[in-house]
Amino acid sequence: MAYTYGSILSKVNSPEDLRQLPEEELPTLCQDVRKYIIEVMANNPGHLAASLGAVELAVAIHYVYNTPVDKLVWDVGHQAYAHKILTGRRDRFPTNRRYGGISGFPKMDESEYDAFGTGHSSTSVSAILGMAIAARLQGDLKRQHIAVIGDGAMTAGMAFEAMNHAGSTGANMLIILNDNGISIDKSVGALRKYLAEFTASRTYNRLRDKIWTLLGGGTRYGANTRAIVKQLGAALKGSLLKSSNLFEAMGFRYFGPVDGHDVVKLSHLLRDLKEIPGPKLLHVVTKKGKGLEKAELDPTTYHSPGAFDPETGELKEEACSQKLPPKYQNVFGKTIIELAKMNPQVVGISPAMPTGCSLNMMMKVMPERAFDVGIAEQHAVTFSAGLAAEGMIPFCNIYSSFMQRAYDQVIHDVALQKLPVVFCLDRGGLVGEDGPTHHGAYDLAYFRAIPGIIVSAPMNEQELRNLMYTAQLRNHGGPFSIRYPRGRGVMTEWNTPFEEIPVGKGRKLREGTDLAILSIGHPGNFAAAAIDSLESEGYSISHYDMRFLKPIDDELLHEVFHLHRKIITVEDGTLKGGLGSAVAEFMAFHGYDARLKMLGIPDEYIPHGTPEELYRDCGFDVEGIKKAVRELLSV
Amino acid sequence: MAYTYGSILSKVNSPEDLRQLPEEELPTLCQDVRKYIIEVMANNPGHLAASLGAVELAVAIHYVYNTPVDKLVWDVGHQAYAHKILTGRRDRFPTNRRYGGISGFPKMDESEYDAFGTGHSSTSVSAILGMAIAARLQGDLKRQHIAVIGDGAMTAGMAFEAMNHAGSTGANMLIILNDNGISIDKSVGALRKYLAEFTASRTYNRLRDKIWTLLGGGTRYGANTRAIVKQLGAALKGSLLKSSNLFEAMGFRYFGPVDGHDVVKLSHLLRDLKEIPGPKLLHVVTKKGKGLEKAELDPTTYHSPGAFDPETGELKEEACSQKLPPKYQNVFGKTIIELAKMNPQVVGISPAMPTGCSLNMMMKVMPERAFDVGIAEQHAVTFSAGLAAEGMIPFCNIYSSFMQRAYDQVIHDVALQKLPVVFCLDRGGLVGEDGPTHHGAYDLAYFRAIPGIIVSAPMNEQELRNLMYTAQLRNHGGPFSIRYPRGRGVMTEWNTPFEEIPVGKGRKLREGTDLAILSIGHPGNFAAAAIDSLESEGYSISHYDMRFLKPIDDELLHEVFHLHRKIITVEDGTLKGGLGSAVAEFMAFHGYDARLKMLGIPDEYIPHGTPEELYRDCGFDVEGIKKAVRELLSV
Repeated sequence: MAYTYGSILSKVNSPEDLRQLPEEELPTLCQDVRKYIIEVMANNPGHLAASLGAVELAVAIHYVYNTPVDKLVWDVGHQAYAHKILTGRRDRFPTNRRYGGISGFPKMDESEYDAFGTGHSSTSVSAILGMAIAARLQGDLKRQHIAVIGDGAMTAGMAFEAMNHAGSTGANMLIILNDNGISIDKSVGALRKYLAEFTASRTYNRLRDKIWTLLGGGTRYGANTRAIVKQLGAALKGSLLKSSNLFEAMGFRYFGPVDGHDVVKLSHLLRDLKEIPGPKLLHVVTKKGKGLEKAELDPTTYHSPGAFDPETGELKEEACSQKLPPKYQNVFGKTIIELAKMNPQVVGISPAMPTGCSLNMMMKVMPERAFDVGIAEQHAVTFSAGLAAEGMIPFCNIYSSFMQRAYDQVIHDVALQKLPVVFCLDRGGLVGEDGPTHHGAYDLAYFRAIPGIIVSAPMNEQELRNLMYTAQLRNHGGPFSIRYPRGRGVMTEWNTPFEEIPVGKGRKLREGTDLAILSIGHPGNFAAAAIDSLESEGYSISHYDMRFLKPIDDELLHEVFHLHRKIITVEDGTLKGGLGSAVAEFMAFHGYDARLKMLGIPDEYIPHGTPEELYRDCGFDVEGIKKAVRELLSV
Repeated sequence: MAYTYGSILSKVNSPEDLRQLPEEELPTLCQDVRKYIIEVMANNPGHLAASLGAVELAVAIHYVYNTPVDKLVWDVGHQAYAHKILTGRRDRFPTNRRYGGISGFPKMDESEYDAFGTGHSSTSVSAILGMAIAARLQGDLKRQHIAVIGDGAMTAGMAFEAMNHAGSTGANMLIILNDNGISIDKSVGALRKYLAEFTASRTYNRLRDKIWTLLGGGTRYGANTRAIVKQLGAALKGSLLKSSNLFEAMGFRYFGPVDGHDVVKLSHLLRDLKEIPGPKLLHVVTKKGKGLEKAELDPTTYHSPGAFDPETGELKEEACSQKLPPKYQNVFGKTIIELAKMNPQVVGISPAMPTGCSLNMMMKVMPERAFDVGIAEQHAVTFSAGLAAEGMIPFCNIYSSFMQRAYDQVIHDVALQKLPVVFCLDRGGLVGEDGPTHHGAYDLAYFRAIPGIIVSAPMNEQELRNLMYTAQLRNHGGPFSIRYPRGRGVMTEWNTPFEEIPVGKGRKLREGTDLAILSIGHPGNFAAAAIDSLESEGYSISHYDMRFLKPIDDELLHEVFHLHRKIITVEDGTLKGGLGSAVAEFMAFHGYDARLKMLGIPDEYIPHGTPEELYRDCGFDVEGIKKAVRELLSV
């Protein structure tokens, strides 16, 4: 499909070109960029709403600052499409998030304009502070350092840690707080409320009005009143604003709030800020989804929508000739409600991902028992630990790659204390288009290292339901982790009656003689399909769905090694420390003699693409498994 | 040794007894408790200064609140000795931190008064919020929830995440901010400055004085001035305090600051606060080391001193008839200065542990290049990433168990972007008396799962120096991790000229014929001693110091498996995913037939005790290795 860029954008191949434009052309450029994003996204889904909200910011920053010499970091980075379009990637933008195409996030090795790669939220303040301090140590007093961070990302602990440090350094940096009241779901927490109140009614104005009223509006104390108020106002403004502003309290000079869609005013302001040394914060108010009415009205749906009509914004229905299996996410969302109705101890927790993980269903039905705690994985886990310490059974749902943020809390606050928190690790394995920052590649390995945690992965929707059911029965001590992938399962009739699954027990799905495949989780379906296909070629293969990586089913493993001399493990996780490693350890420990081949995510960073493309590249899709079987049986 | 408890403490066997005391006896009780802590600590080292500062807090809380029904969480927990003494552990207190004795931290399975175990900082707000929400869901409106957290711990991101959530819930909880200006080292950052300014000069008082001065002190605007000021003051006080206080901005009702050593006033205040619903914060100012003059003057040294004279506080010199090897910490501290003098790119970063890890040496010599970023592991790592992105070589020193807090940042911000950050993992392995919260048991496993990181561990001081030297040469891409234990190495002549160590190469220390021992890091010395001893029994054993867990030395491993059929791995880390697993994977992958025995930290939580006691229990001290060799050679 061919795209047109509009009159101004077609002239802008780089920030150099942008900086040649007269100021008056900036609004048209913004229109062009916005139109281009909408047109491309309409057919090639991506992070739409956030990027629409940050068009003027991207234009103004590159117009004013000397990028890439000046350093610019986009927090999270899914709002950086305009930035990408303006920095040499306009023509490649339609390959966004596609296999072999440009990344949906800033990426250091993609462009010199991407000063720091992002994906997970709230890293930008730390990174830009590091760069600002580096400039100081290198004697470069001219270089500017800008980070753009959303109000949602600002609630994460690490942003606060960085603000606390930065505010005391005097480093030359500008934090642009892109305040749209939304992370993916609506922003939550006290900071959100603070920003909203602050924006709605500026402290100083409130105070001045109050003094005026108090003093009788000029009537009570006579003609002097106006002079008093004026003098009070001017003199107190500085110190009052300073002490009344959260960011000033953190050592930042605060500017704002300003309209983030007035590109000319923004660029004037940025030009002024360039002259002010030290840590500064510019509070910019924007509208997520700006320019596409439906996205403005429902930014959560349009955060990352499917295909849509570029004119109306109407979402295109997925063409669907047959009944598809549900997403694992929906099975989680529906099942936790069923369990919560049966068991009053069950509660649900999500750190700012209720829509993504489907906890939003429970938040609607029983809002007092389902918690969105903000972008705050560390808190989410220890908050769950506190709930569990007092008899609740929290289902704490965190994406696998975000759980990396709460690793210490899982060990120190939950597992060590044997608290019955249920961890639902959504997005386990290769997530697809979001790429290496979001692949859930490590959880099986990093959880297996923790004593006393139960580590499980369902092969299908029914198993997910039953594992969730089993976890809340609490017939076990300590935490219970259930990991499953992004997207659809394999069963259309998934809503079966609950059955307890014996903890630490796998199951034999098929018995064969030539070789055994041991799988965990969803890739078991690839193994099953491979075995089906290989059977028609005359092979006879056993299939064991281990279900639990920890405790691993020793009895079943003994059976496997007694019956087989050739074994393949299949997992949707790194080969360093997961199922394959556990089986290798078992084999070495018990002195079994066998040939073991491990399939899984190799020890490297897997790029973005469709899950199918990535499974293929990693060699554990159906064809990959068949190939591995043939190879192993040929030696 | 027999201790006397003093006249009041001898009557107090539990908080029940305490609550029977008349208020006037509380100060004497505090004296008794303080004296007892000093006497016990003088011979049995522990966390002295923090606990001395929190005596009145502990007494007042248990006096006023109905513990253990009311829930009390001590953040970090090393300040909770008075709490332990008051809650049934008075007589056992001299066993504090000893093998088989009580823990140095609150521990749920030690006492029902320990509502939540701690050790790592900044977890208490999350935990107590979870408990408060549990009470609400369970319909218990009477139960009180108290967390005591230091000003240092308040800077950690997860405390902020929890405050942000808590402030918006209306949950019934009291956060007591124990503000002593010290974490272990002096507290740093903007929050610290804010608290100090706030305490020194309350906003309201400042404002009132300012108004008075502005209006000419009653001369300029005549007799009305005093009336104006009075009216303004009374009316603005509420709203001003509200908007000017950081914690009020977070949705907490703020009280304080008050003197944390006036036990009677404290208990009155707590009684009042019990009646106020919702999230509250009481700001208490205390003196770390209170009651022992030397500790008050130098709380960093007295944070966890060795033995001392209970009367004078004078530290006892370690009796030392021979020259001891240095601590690994000091080797790090001295070496980084040498490297920084040679290489202007080298900088040092520590999250609030400069004294513990010896970065304080560099902070003295080159303060502009050594950074204490506060209790902020996540920020420390991504700040390092930002520095590295702009050409610096940061040595980011974080204790192994605290690195669990920054796991995501190591993956997402450093390793994925191939940034040359050097991670120095201090306290790798079993740390001894601090116990399971602080054992560095998992880092080898969780780092090995990360693509592109170099994972190394020196066997002695010279190796540590050379690994640090090698890391800053930057003849490699990506992060370089060097882990070493707490305490002394093995070489008195350690300060040898720098030599580059080939990355990914181990070394053969001894050649034998019966069996090979593969070790990584400091426990290699136990293996060497075991081999010495076994040789005199007639055994012939090879010893390989792997040095690198990642990339592992494949060539050396092939040699090992070609020459040996019996192999023992030794490591000071969990057996799930570390060196032993790597060797098992290698063996399975290459189809080697051998007997492999893995020694290391078993898959369970190791209690506290001396490192020697714990090594023995885990079976990889000298005797344990000898036993394993004999066993393996007997099959």
